[in-house]
Amino acid sequence: MPARRDATAPHTPYTPETLLEVAVGVFIERGYDGTSMEHLARAAGISKSSIYHHVPGKEELLRRAVSQALDGLDAVLDEPGARAGRSVERLEHVVRRTTEVLMERLPYVTLLLRVRGNTATERWALERRRKFDHRVAELVRRAEAEGDLRPGVDPRLETRLLFGMINSIVEWYRPQRGGPQVSPRVVEAVISTAFNGLRAPGRS
Amino acid sequence: MPARRDATAPHTPYTPETLLEVAVGVFIERGYDGTSMEHLARAAGISKSSIYHHVPGKEELLRRAVSQALDGLDAVLDEPGARAGRSVERLEHVVRRTTEVLMERLPYVTLLLRVRGNTATERWALERRRKFDHRVAELVRRAEAEGDLRPGVDPRLETRLLFGMINSIVEWYRPQRGGPQVSPRVVEAVISTAFNGLRAPGRS
Repeated sequence: MPARRDATAPHTPYTPETLLEVAVGVFIERGYDGTSMEHLARAAGISKSSIYHHVPGKEELLRRAVSQALDGLDAVLDEPGARAGRSVERLEHVVRRTTEVLMERLPYVTLLLRVRGNTATERWALERRRKFDHRVAELVRRAEAEGDLRPGVDPRLETRLLFGMINSIVEWYRPQRGGPQVSPRVVEAVISTAFNGLRAPGRS
Repeated sequence: MPARRDATAPHTPYTPETLLEVAVGVFIERGYDGTSMEHLARAAGISKSSIYHHVPGKEELLRRAVSQALDGLDAVLDEPGARAGRSVERLEHVVRRTTEVLMERLPYVTLLLRVRGNTATERWALERRRKFDHRVAELVRRAEAEGDLRPGVDPRLETRLLFGMINSIVEWYRPQRGGPQVSPRVVEAVISTAFNGLRAPGRS
């Protein structure tokens, strides 16, 4: 979570990137609806007019923030590992990389997952999330058709459960300051549980 | 989600139970912090003093609401299926029944999962949730020690992923009005994915 600045902090010049980091922290803490430009200005330790110099309003900050998450997730689906090979291997690639992107862009994905749809930008973000989910559900469907998944798997339901597991990581995952953002241990646990389940092989 | 009443609805006498149902709906919609007694009175179509006749304030309604969820979950751990047999079978019973309780008490569990810890009642609810999670993590640990789970499973991490998957059901599950509350299809998908994974047997 980006550190908050306050009015007593030394005045380092704000860039659109550092302002975005501060805004995401405030949006997560207060909720997007509950955040005013005044709150953002106070957290950034700059005046409202300095913020208006960068962006026309808070909705543009929300758009940039959720784009950080959505662009990262969409890029996964265009990686070679997601486009070639058996569908089950492509699906595994997508699950692994989605989990990594969630950790790399933790505040942005956290914000994305809290978006509710009250503004045009929120509805646009939800629509992009839906498209991403559909593309993953299509991979599940193909992997099942190719005989690599448990027979009778419901692609839409399984995609929901899979992302339920992955997305819940934002609730508790807190990387160490200055350490690596991604935990390979968590990624491996997600992959093993999703594809092989908890039970030891041969013990079903 | 309980239907809202408004001031034009016929005046049926309120009982503590119907008031609780209305309150839970409002808490979920507005957030607990954002809900005033005025909001509750308007949603229930009764006066604030009628609400004060039943309860000393909104925190008591929150306590009763999250107790509906927590009592249901705790009761699962005391069922015979959770107390006897190999740990892996006990764990499977707990996962199955937890998923069922979530569906049966959907609004109450939804509210419980949004509790953040700003009041004494919220902190008490979080503490009860933590105790529940610890008891399940202990079952995971025992099942691994008995050789029934993948070797090297991390009980705390797996418990988090497991409940991440289960709890995410509140985000999208909406039973048909007047139909059964529990979907056996969803319960079976949770059990299969959690214990056997998505991959077809013999295809790892």
